Amino acid sequence: MSELRGACIIGQSGGPTSVINASAYGAIRTALDSDSITRVLGAAHGIKGVLDDVLYDMSKEDPAELERLKYTPSSALGSCRYKLADPDEDDTDYKRILEIFKKYDVRYFFYNGGNDSMDTCNKISKYMMKVGYECRVMGIPKTIDNDLFGTDHCPGYGSAAKYVATSCMEVFHDANVYDTGQITIIEIMGRHAGWLCAASALATHMGAGPDLIYLPELAFDLDTFLKDVMDVYNEKGKCIAAVSEGIHDKDGKFISEYGSNLASTTDSFGHAQLGGLAATLASIVKEKTGAKVRDIEFSLLQRCAAHVASEVDIEEAFMAGKVAVEQAVAGVTDKMVAFERTSQDPYKCEPKLIDLTVVANVEKKVPREWINEDGNGLLLPFIDYALPLIQGETKLGKEHGLPRFAKLKKVRATV
Amino acid sequence: MSELRGACIIGQSGGPTSVINASAYGAIRTALDSDSITRVLGAAHGIKGVLDDVLYDMSKEDPAELERLKYTPSSALGSCRYKLADPDEDDTDYKRILEIFKKYDVRYFFYNGGNDSMDTCNKISKYMMKVGYECRVMGIPKTIDNDLFGTDHCPGYGSAAKYVATSCMEVFHDANVYDTGQITIIEIMGRHAGWLCAASALATHMGAGPDLIYLPELAFDLDTFLKDVMDVYNEKGKCIAAVSEGIHDKDGKFISEYGSNLASTTDSFGHAQLGGLAATLASIVKEKTGAKVRDIEFSLLQRCAAHVASEVDIEEAFMAGKVAVEQAVAGVTDKMVAFERTSQDPYKCEPKLIDLTVVANVEKKVPREWINEDGNGLLLPFIDYALPLIQGETKLGKEHGLPRFAKLKKVRATV
Repeated sequence: MSELRGACIIGQSGGPTSVINASAYGAIRTALDSDSITRVLGAAHGIKGVLDDVLYDMSKEDPAELERLKYTPSSALGSCRYKLADPDEDDTDYKRILEIFKKYDVRYFFYNGGNDSMDTCNKISKYMMKVGYECRVMGIPKTIDNDLFGTDHCPGYGSAAKYVATSCMEVFHDANVYDTGQITIIEIMGRHAGWLCAASALATHMGAGPDLIYLPELAFDLDTFLKDVMDVYNEKGKCIAAVSEGIHDKDGKFISEYGSNLASTTDSFGHAQLGGLAATLASIVKEKTGAKVRDIEFSLLQRCAAHVASEVDIEEAFMAGKVAVEQAVAGVTDKMVAFERTSQDPYKCEPKLIDLTVVANVEKKVPREWINEDGNGLLLPFIDYALPLIQGETKLGKEHGLPRFAKLKKVRATV
Repeated sequence: MSELRGACIIGQSGGPTSVINASAYGAIRTALDSDSITRVLGAAHGIKGVLDDVLYDMSKEDPAELERLKYTPSSALGSCRYKLADPDEDDTDYKRILEIFKKYDVRYFFYNGGNDSMDTCNKISKYMMKVGYECRVMGIPKTIDNDLFGTDHCPGYGSAAKYVATSCMEVFHDANVYDTGQITIIEIMGRHAGWLCAASALATHMGAGPDLIYLPELAFDLDTFLKDVMDVYNEKGKCIAAVSEGIHDKDGKFISEYGSNLASTTDSFGHAQLGGLAATLASIVKEKTGAKVRDIEFSLLQRCAAHVASEVDIEEAFMAGKVAVEQAVAGVTDKMVAFERTSQDPYKCEPKLIDLTVVANVEKKVPREWINEDGNGLLLPFIDYALPLIQGETKLGKEHGLPRFAKLKKVRATV
């Protein structure tokens, strides 16, 4: 493969995670150090920054601040939830992207995101091939949802899982404190796949977690749930139930929509916007049982609590960004960096490459055989799977007892 | 003062904190090592454990597990919210407490809690004096609310403040990520005093915190709030507002009660049970402005997120428990251990003793002069006050990447 010289664009897309910036840093640092890549550009708010011609010159950043990206949550370059049209129906955006690529002589495009972002990445890759513009396009995975196909797991998941498990252990201690009885309902992110809610089982595995765990992989039945909760409550005097945001009944109706005051809206990808599930369930449980019920929504902290990020996750996220650039420079294109678990004990994970076409828009769910028969708990294979991903602590620097996150100058690139 | 030999009881009361167990450990360890204290008993669920004769023999615990209490959140012995009657009206409980004290030859009583617990402690102290039963009674302060009178600050506050400031910084990064505009409303605990919500200003001080902060010290006006939010939103395209759970209008009505579906109930101390404030405000803001609004309630994690506890807070909490026992053994009674800041730079804090009568049921509020003129932000004197309290990191041990909290055997004491 002949050397391809030119600029690269790095973009971040979709919901942020604690380590998406670690991947960005892996890509940016490797690209800055590459002889083939002449210029490293960061796209403001993902593909929107390309369309709007808002690109940052990453060489203008202080290297020490760039390094802090490894421990800085959210998307430092800005993110977006922008869906590209089918190019056969409307190629306006693609023509504009090509125009910008030509303007800056962009020959490498790295896109860091989840399912929808891999769809974007795939469409751009295919379009550039079709029009014969040489540009190597690589997807870098991230999602706390852990639902990307073809990879053992996704960067972002380990840190979110560590936050969820740690917080569940702390809530367990708190919820155990009075002798007056309490039912606690914890709502955890996850629209269609229950990986993150399942991580609460790691707390249970450590002896201080939810009694009951419900994932969207199985249809949720309110009566069965109420019986499960009361069985535990009557036995122990307390009960903690963790529920995935996206649990739904056998007809596909989200349980969060059971609340009369909670109308569902949809985002630009056609996903239902969820929220208020724990509050809805809590009010139902309270009404049916008369028990003291507390609802907790972990909310945004699940995806941005970098202070409790997993070291394994940070290093793997960095590696994913680094490998994407190295492989592209070596001639690879139209792939996503994925992970293969080559050893379980000791845990070892190595990068592999999969076709963007294969990964885009396919969701990976928690296997049925990892969920208990009653559908309200996780089994040991899940623990074995997830536990290695939450190991180690972040090296996040502190200043005045608080996190010292990266501060970028974001200098606009000019031609 | 002559030596007083006998057993001691240690009880934990009120809402738990990340460091109430650090105080318990300070008291338990010091009592176990004391020659005057013949037996160290832990009360199950505070004063209720005394009334119910459910006491644990702390000498039966593994010393290494006891030491882990320093880093374990919540109340390891169990807590309660039990209000003792006025002894002049109904002395049933007091007679029972005296009976238990005599049964176990209890000559030392240490009670760890907030305002209501100091009331309990004070009443028991005065009753024992009145009936001529020699027992040294000491209060050990704790409350994330930081509203105890007569002390520079309270154990528990620093860790909760560190959690709030850290989480606000992380939410700030997350909420900044899209270019579509967002208003974020964060609800922080604090019924009558805004100390904890004020801690969000530490994040702002670090360049990544709320734009607006509202404390219950000042009457909250909805129209002014909406104007404040829209002014920031129109200027920046985003806005983060932190609101104290207990904000109320000039007539004293809680803003959380503005929501038509949120009925208020009261707990056994006659306090209104609050909740759902952020959701209520979010729906009002959304309706009035049409902007994208996100509400976040930090919920229980504020008081139990021990993984991000402040080292200063942990060590001071331990010291408060230790000093209570040392002083009681030396002859002191009817006091609460308080803190005096003897130096600001470098920060230094020393214990002092104040009368239980003085501290019970008096609430300390954030001084008006520490709040800005518009009543929507904190000034530098608050930062100078709070910043030293959140310094240093916990030495919490980890196991499999998760917290290793203390596990007590809780062996029931017999006579």
